[in-house]
Amino acid sequence: MTQEDPESSIQSNQRVVGIVGAGPAGLTLGNLLLEAGIPCVVLERGTREYIETRPRAGVIEHRAVQMLADHGLAGRLLQEADRHGACEFRVNGEAHEVDYSSLYEGQTHYVYPQQEVVKDLLSNYLARGGDIRFSVTDVELHGIDTPEPALTWTSSDGRRERLECSFLGGADGFHGVSRRSIPPGAVQEFTYQHGIEWLSILAEAPPSTHKVIYALHPDGFAGHMLRSSTVSRYYLQVPTDDTVDNWPDDRVWAELHKRLALRDSDWKLTEGRIIEKRILDMRSHVVEPMCYGRLYLLGDAAHIITPVGAKGMNLALHDAEVLADALISYHRTGDESGLRSYSEVCLRRVWRAQEFSQWMVFMIHRSPEPFLSRLGQARLEHLIASGASAGYFAQNYVGP
Amino acid sequence: MTQEDPESSIQSNQRVVGIVGAGPAGLTLGNLLLEAGIPCVVLERGTREYIETRPRAGVIEHRAVQMLADHGLAGRLLQEADRHGACEFRVNGEAHEVDYSSLYEGQTHYVYPQQEVVKDLLSNYLARGGDIRFSVTDVELHGIDTPEPALTWTSSDGRRERLECSFLGGADGFHGVSRRSIPPGAVQEFTYQHGIEWLSILAEAPPSTHKVIYALHPDGFAGHMLRSSTVSRYYLQVPTDDTVDNWPDDRVWAELHKRLALRDSDWKLTEGRIIEKRILDMRSHVVEPMCYGRLYLLGDAAHIITPVGAKGMNLALHDAEVLADALISYHRTGDESGLRSYSEVCLRRVWRAQEFSQWMVFMIHRSPEPFLSRLGQARLEHLIASGASAGYFAQNYVGP
Repeated sequence: MTQEDPESSIQSNQRVVGIVGAGPAGLTLGNLLLEAGIPCVVLERGTREYIETRPRAGVIEHRAVQMLADHGLAGRLLQEADRHGACEFRVNGEAHEVDYSSLYEGQTHYVYPQQEVVKDLLSNYLARGGDIRFSVTDVELHGIDTPEPALTWTSSDGRRERLECSFLGGADGFHGVSRRSIPPGAVQEFTYQHGIEWLSILAEAPPSTHKVIYALHPDGFAGHMLRSSTVSRYYLQVPTDDTVDNWPDDRVWAELHKRLALRDSDWKLTEGRIIEKRILDMRSHVVEPMCYGRLYLLGDAAHIITPVGAKGMNLALHDAEVLADALISYHRTGDESGLRSYSEVCLRRVWRAQEFSQWMVFMIHRSPEPFLSRLGQARLEHLIASGASAGYFAQNYVGP
Repeated sequence: MTQEDPESSIQSNQRVVGIVGAGPAGLTLGNLLLEAGIPCVVLERGTREYIETRPRAGVIEHRAVQMLADHGLAGRLLQEADRHGACEFRVNGEAHEVDYSSLYEGQTHYVYPQQEVVKDLLSNYLARGGDIRFSVTDVELHGIDTPEPALTWTSSDGRRERLECSFLGGADGFHGVSRRSIPPGAVQEFTYQHGIEWLSILAEAPPSTHKVIYALHPDGFAGHMLRSSTVSRYYLQVPTDDTVDNWPDDRVWAELHKRLALRDSDWKLTEGRIIEKRILDMRSHVVEPMCYGRLYLLGDAAHIITPVGAKGMNLALHDAEVLADALISYHRTGDESGLRSYSEVCLRRVWRAQEFSQWMVFMIHRSPEPFLSRLGQARLEHLIASGASAGYFAQNYVGP
């Protein structure tokens, strides 16, 4: 497989794939295109340091790891990531483990922080001769409904630049310019507020557990997620419209201790320096179709999902894989079928994940409506007690 | 096992179990008590003809049939009922069969109209020497929080009567006097309106199908349920606050033909004389606990569930079984543990059924909220495509 130098491609007036956003979706797309000899350029508004340290998700599914490994992108991940095949639900101070790996073909989650995924993807992209422009501003998309789209931006040294493109990959998130460049009404946007807020906490604390913990407490949900041997993420359900200011560190720890407590157990939550506190408003968003003209949306630009079920980064990686395959087929043989089915293939997985995430949101939060609250409780009790329900959970959680 | 004559028990001042309501729950309880030699009296506001012809539910689960058979109450049912192990979802004119029996230990549904269940239970009850008073009015419950409760009523010939009881079984439905006799606040009542209305139609038409059909159509849900070789039940989702007057017979058939249509198929709905049209407001109701003092609620008096999933009569039969076991233990040995756990044991099954019914309601109706509507669609697509989801459905639908 030959690899062209993207710069020379630009200079030779060969149109390239323009990718907006250097997150997991954009960088995976870039890597897969370079691997196939298709030139591309990635624009990123942040610095390299910013994207390599920004903590976000941390759970990668078996299937996504396989895909990264197939393209030589999982070397460090496979060496360093912890593999997890069980999670724990804590209800009334009692722990209930669900061994989802044994329930679904031995598949596991890989615990590996998103910024490490980004680091690996970026170093691979650069090693493959990839062209990436950091700290760009005022990105604009042009001619997206024509065969000759283009990107313009202001570079870090203040120059206005332009890139003639064959296709555009919009991987710049929900607030990015890509989605907003689609004319109003040209695609359908589904939005949903789940009416639930979480305080998301990142702390320099070793994990207090070997399994993700979902705790249901009368005062609200609490979660203990795994990130690395030195950093852990926690979630606390907070009243809607609550703010970070209401949650000084000592209140955070007190509440985590209380909601995560185990009865008749020596287990104790390990504290650490809190390095990030954010309010997460549980919302969902889906753009349908995920493309317009020659602009293809990937990852958060196309869909926002709640953190429940840890699907966000996995959907982004899937989008990148599907789009790369489609672009490679088109470049090699002119076959447009992959591009035509891109949105449908991705959305099938997106809606499946959204449905599962909402199923789980309903289960681990108590509705203010007493009847629905009891249904959520019955759902969790059934998951703990029933093989059929645990099998359903396992397949959706770790796969498919 | 000796069987006492309930009349003589009353005359000898031995207190009896007073049962209000001669539906499946009340009559099953009566039969099981008589079988164990415990005297009881059943009060029913309708006539014998009324309860033996009133069409309602028509699907009995494997487990409930086993219970009836164990007590000699399933003779005719086992001979005459059709057994069903598959149902069909119709989406966009395409049929998708789910063979739930093969997915859950070969268990099947028994299709047998509720009034036939009542007929069999009543004839068995009478054959066992059971005491039942039809056409009673103005039933009142007395001393339900004392060890000496009583029932008073006006008999069909206008006399005011009184029965001294050991325990009371309240099996007279949601609108009955039993539930209303519990002091306000003494139990918690959960109510939920699902925001969905069905027009329920019963017609003298042979079934047009060998499987229950759940059809999703852009104009709303339609269902074809099985009752007998000469009678079928159909459901049409209608706008909330719609009335039967808006649905003359020809409109009903036109809408059923349209929503149940199969593409590229000779299948056709068979029409017949419509003998019942009712509006069903999808609502749920649960009383917790299901008892107060010496009054134990059974069936619809304790819980209302949507028809989706066909759980109503099955829960009623389960309540009767659990209460009969508890009363028999108490009468034989004085052991109160069964009575103490009655509500908890029944409610575990009730909440499970409510959760499943709502899961299914969400799947077969399209929410006015576009995002949720897509989740319902994704849930159904997953059920059709995925073994894990079908297994979850099967276990909940036909069992457990």
